[in-house]
Amino acid sequence: MSQVFSDGAVARAMDTEEINSNPTSRRHGADVLPHIHKVSSPPKQTLFQDFKHNFNETFFSDDPFGKFKDQKGSRKFVLGLQSVFPIFDWGRGYNLKSFKGDLISGLTIASLCIPQDIAYAKLAHLDPQYGLYTSFIAPLVYAFMGSSRDIAIGPVAVVSLLLGTLLSDEIKDTKSHEYLRLAFTATFFAGITQMALGLLRLGFLIDFLSHAAIVGFMGGAAITIALQQLKGLLGIKNFTTKTDIISVMRSVFSVAHHGAKKKKNLFWVAAISPMICVIVSTFCVYITRADKKGVAIVRHIKKGVNPASASEIYFSGNYLSAGIRIGLISGMVALTEAVAIGRTFAAMKDYSIDGNREMVALGTMNVIGSMTSCYVATGSFSRSAVNYMAGCKTAVSNIVMSFVLLLTLLVITPLFKYTPNAVLASIIIAAVLNLIDIKAAILLWKIDKFDFLACMGAFFGVIFKSVEIGLLIAVAISFAKILLQVTRPRTAVLGKLPGTAVYRNVLQYPKAAQIPGMLIVRVDSAIYFSNSNYIKDRILKWLTDEEILRTSSEYPSIQYLIVEMSPVTDIDTSGIHAFEDLLKSLKKRDVQLLVANPGPIVIEKFHASKLTGLIGEDKIFLTVGDAVSTFGGKGAGGKSADS
Amino acid sequence: MSQVFSDGAVARAMDTEEINSNPTSRRHGADVLPHIHKVSSPPKQTLFQDFKHNFNETFFSDDPFGKFKDQKGSRKFVLGLQSVFPIFDWGRGYNLKSFKGDLISGLTIASLCIPQDIAYAKLAHLDPQYGLYTSFIAPLVYAFMGSSRDIAIGPVAVVSLLLGTLLSDEIKDTKSHEYLRLAFTATFFAGITQMALGLLRLGFLIDFLSHAAIVGFMGGAAITIALQQLKGLLGIKNFTTKTDIISVMRSVFSVAHHGAKKKKNLFWVAAISPMICVIVSTFCVYITRADKKGVAIVRHIKKGVNPASASEIYFSGNYLSAGIRIGLISGMVALTEAVAIGRTFAAMKDYSIDGNREMVALGTMNVIGSMTSCYVATGSFSRSAVNYMAGCKTAVSNIVMSFVLLLTLLVITPLFKYTPNAVLASIIIAAVLNLIDIKAAILLWKIDKFDFLACMGAFFGVIFKSVEIGLLIAVAISFAKILLQVTRPRTAVLGKLPGTAVYRNVLQYPKAAQIPGMLIVRVDSAIYFSNSNYIKDRILKWLTDEEILRTSSEYPSIQYLIVEMSPVTDIDTSGIHAFEDLLKSLKKRDVQLLVANPGPIVIEKFHASKLTGLIGEDKIFLTVGDAVSTFGGKGAGGKSADS
Repeated sequence: MSQVFSDGAVARAMDTEEINSNPTSRRHGADVLPHIHKVSSPPKQTLFQDFKHNFNETFFSDDPFGKFKDQKGSRKFVLGLQSVFPIFDWGRGYNLKSFKGDLISGLTIASLCIPQDIAYAKLAHLDPQYGLYTSFIAPLVYAFMGSSRDIAIGPVAVVSLLLGTLLSDEIKDTKSHEYLRLAFTATFFAGITQMALGLLRLGFLIDFLSHAAIVGFMGGAAITIALQQLKGLLGIKNFTTKTDIISVMRSVFSVAHHGAKKKKNLFWVAAISPMICVIVSTFCVYITRADKKGVAIVRHIKKGVNPASASEIYFSGNYLSAGIRIGLISGMVALTEAVAIGRTFAAMKDYSIDGNREMVALGTMNVIGSMTSCYVATGSFSRSAVNYMAGCKTAVSNIVMSFVLLLTLLVITPLFKYTPNAVLASIIIAAVLNLIDIKAAILLWKIDKFDFLACMGAFFGVIFKSVEIGLLIAVAISFAKILLQVTRPRTAVLGKLPGTAVYRNVLQYPKAAQIPGMLIVRVDSAIYFSNSNYIKDRILKWLTDEEILRTSSEYPSIQYLIVEMSPVTDIDTSGIHAFEDLLKSLKKRDVQLLVANPGPIVIEKFHASKLTGLIGEDKIFLTVGDAVSTFGGKGAGGKSADS
Repeated sequence: MSQVFSDGAVARAMDTEEINSNPTSRRHGADVLPHIHKVSSPPKQTLFQDFKHNFNETFFSDDPFGKFKDQKGSRKFVLGLQSVFPIFDWGRGYNLKSFKGDLISGLTIASLCIPQDIAYAKLAHLDPQYGLYTSFIAPLVYAFMGSSRDIAIGPVAVVSLLLGTLLSDEIKDTKSHEYLRLAFTATFFAGITQMALGLLRLGFLIDFLSHAAIVGFMGGAAITIALQQLKGLLGIKNFTTKTDIISVMRSVFSVAHHGAKKKKNLFWVAAISPMICVIVSTFCVYITRADKKGVAIVRHIKKGVNPASASEIYFSGNYLSAGIRIGLISGMVALTEAVAIGRTFAAMKDYSIDGNREMVALGTMNVIGSMTSCYVATGSFSRSAVNYMAGCKTAVSNIVMSFVLLLTLLVITPLFKYTPNAVLASIIIAAVLNLIDIKAAILLWKIDKFDFLACMGAFFGVIFKSVEIGLLIAVAISFAKILLQVTRPRTAVLGKLPGTAVYRNVLQYPKAAQIPGMLIVRVDSAIYFSNSNYIKDRILKWLTDEEILRTSSEYPSIQYLIVEMSPVTDIDTSGIHAFEDLLKSLKKRDVQLLVANPGPIVIEKFHASKLTGLIGEDKIFLTVGDAVSTFGGKGAGGKSADS
């Protein structure tokens, strides 16, 4: 059985995987001729090699240092610089054609982001200019360090809302200077969190917020924001005649918006309509002085570029811990959004995003932002989509946007003083309604009910409780799913597909026939402490169930239990102990254990733990077919395996 | 390709799994003849069936209600009663022979537990009689409700130490009445925790404390306890001449103990020597009145059975939350120990332990215990082993022990007043040294380095910080391992074993040959949100690496990527999105995606998400062999697959 043949003998040797029209002759042939291959252990590695491999696979699976290998010192420096500032990499090949695309898309997202910035700042209970500040500095920093070509950086609705909620929980008076300082503190620590995750290569942690949870969370946050704004939008109605204009404009805006959704080449209508709304309505209010008749307007907005704010950050005192906590939460949420956007567009254009480097870029951006009067910035879904559709080529579109913002801050900011709040509210509503992804929710329901549950949990959590509770529910449900995965792996009973040597799940392939006198069970997971007892019990339960079934049908009783271990990529000491227990239990029942296709790590650990000896070297096979053909003729009393 | 053949046609059809001495003719044959089986979806289940199945598999995998099916009402009642009180089940077949075994083992563990009880109570900073109380009531309750036949119930060293540490952190004055009340409160909530876990069928949660972590934790706790006691043991030397006797006795005891370890039939020497030590030393002290010369003795011990203590439990006030917290921790640790013992002995005698029912039994026992002046009881490693070796048959041995304890409490307790503390210390040391399992630690090192790390983390955590920190480290490392498992699943490149149609990991089987123009990658895990991006990136990285390798060796470039999905038992929406992204990236690279053997759930979700259409129905195969033989002849330019 475990004899090794030379490669030359291969052609003549008959194999048990062979298909033959006569199953009886096949088995006889197999009994006589030995199998060609035995289960082999991989080349032995030293502990250090082993550890290094695992460590690299865990933290450096993207091989970020691969390109530094075999390079000269000066070249290494250039590569390192390019690695931290990708702009020096792609910048060399930058040309006029690319710039044309970036200029147009940059101008488009600038016109979209200015009204959004003003509006979102209000969600965070900050003065409107802070939104504009954030859209000036943050994209500039990102353009030098980020690796996404399509993301549009700036303040976003959900993070603004989250920040506003968390900050005002801490400091009730949102107009106080302490509130502003805490906002900068939170931004600083959001950046530090993001940098730390990237530098420590723990980027995979954000994968724990599942797609499903994000869909629900975003939808819930969007509805919360929309309802908040609607209140403001409707509240105005009783005071003024101006609402007519505004509501007309709002409907114009929303019609344009929907038109754009239907036809992709009309996207620019959606992109610039908010700006037009703002300009027209601001002009109307200015002309008619509607603000004196009760129309609420922005009123306070400061002209000029970002003032320095490094000295405003709390590095001690009572608010430090609150700042860290809020920064941590909002930093993680911001990261999730940015990485999701980055990945989506990277897949569309097939370039790769280095998640960890991306986090360092976003983190640096927010740390610098916190020192220049910005609050937490990240990638915006709506503006990134517009950026992509307007034909952006590189992050230069962010630089263009940034320059437009600079001009805005220097020159026209004071004009926004007369912008009616209602228009801003409608801009927010229009923007956040895009975040409600009903199609995605329906798809979740269709594909995976558990995902749908996570989505709804997050959704209703945000709507009925708060953004934090929603987030917590989303994470908790995601973790519950992982717990299920690691404690309750699947097992399957296999049968032989008639006319082949292929063994498949009998539930999936009703034609697959079980072998008399044998039970074949496949374990579909690595065997770890978290599931080893369950797997052992489950295998024994399959055995008991099948024995009861077969007793009634006059089949020979089960003498061999074949455990197909192909999917078992790893086993730990608890798993080894579970196997020992399984062997003991099987011994009491007079059932022999056969093992098929243990993987490299498993067979190595079987050897190390001397389990190979307990099972018997001759009971470990390369394939299920080998095991069946070796022992199938004996226990089955000559019955055909294909019956 | 996806044509279905009738079963009758099977015998004549030639299959791609066939082995042929001429590989070229094989491929030609396969190109002409279609495959017999296509990938099938399992019978469609309704949402409710699906949910019910998953729910049952998660929480009722042991099918506890199976036996109630198709039974009459009165029979159901009897079965229900037997299910809550297994004693009514096995009690009917109980006979004199069994009783003989139980009587001897019961007397043996009683003689072992009396000195241990007195000693362990001191670890928990309680008066000695509380140890005896606990060994009277708790085993009695367990005997009626528990399902293990070999476990010996009572106070144990580690839980006593943990409880003593946690309680005295809360209340410094361990002699105060509040301390005692808090101990009962913690015991009550430990019981409630255990009951709740069992009733809610969350028993699998204790599996998260891995075997490795427990080995380290126990070892650390044992050394901590031993060092503590050694201090007491050595401290006495300076005061008295009596130490000579004591140290002689200690060496006698330890010699006997080691003798017993070597020869299994001498186990009773180890079992009764503590009792003999206590009797002899107590007698010596009483005769010589050594206590007046400085030998520390027990001094205070109360005669009589357990007083009621229900009214002592804090159900409100400041200590309630502390009681709940301490109860939760100690309840979980106690549970882990009891379940580990139960499983070990159940595997030895091949009977099954219902983990959840066991938890209800242990929980009820501690709740009743907390009302009758007991503190947290659980299964003791040392006494259970003695119980097993003395030939116990059922839980009646616990009842016997309980009666001996009753007599002890009623009659001879006052005599223990003169027992020297040093003897108790040596009894504790001898008992806990058994918990240091160096062999297990060596095995951990050999089998799984990560397990060894968890073990050492817990070990040094307990020794250098505290039992709680050690426990925390153990749980944290265990969780880290699970995180790794779910975020970094393994993938493998497969090759064809020469002379067979078997595809195996090329790293494990260096002879396995890759197919020109094709790359075969196996994914070894369910694809969930936590790993979907990693898997996608990893597959693309395999592709990139292989392309670089093959370019240099003049092989044809890769045109087909075959993803072997046998081990992928489930996929969620994030996984589906990752596949969509993979398809997009492959399209840009001009590589076709072929899928081999998706499982029942995966193929169903592929259909639901319309991914089947994107991949192409004709690109989903039953086996890797099918995929290779269908497309292998085209892209490979006629090169032999076995080259």
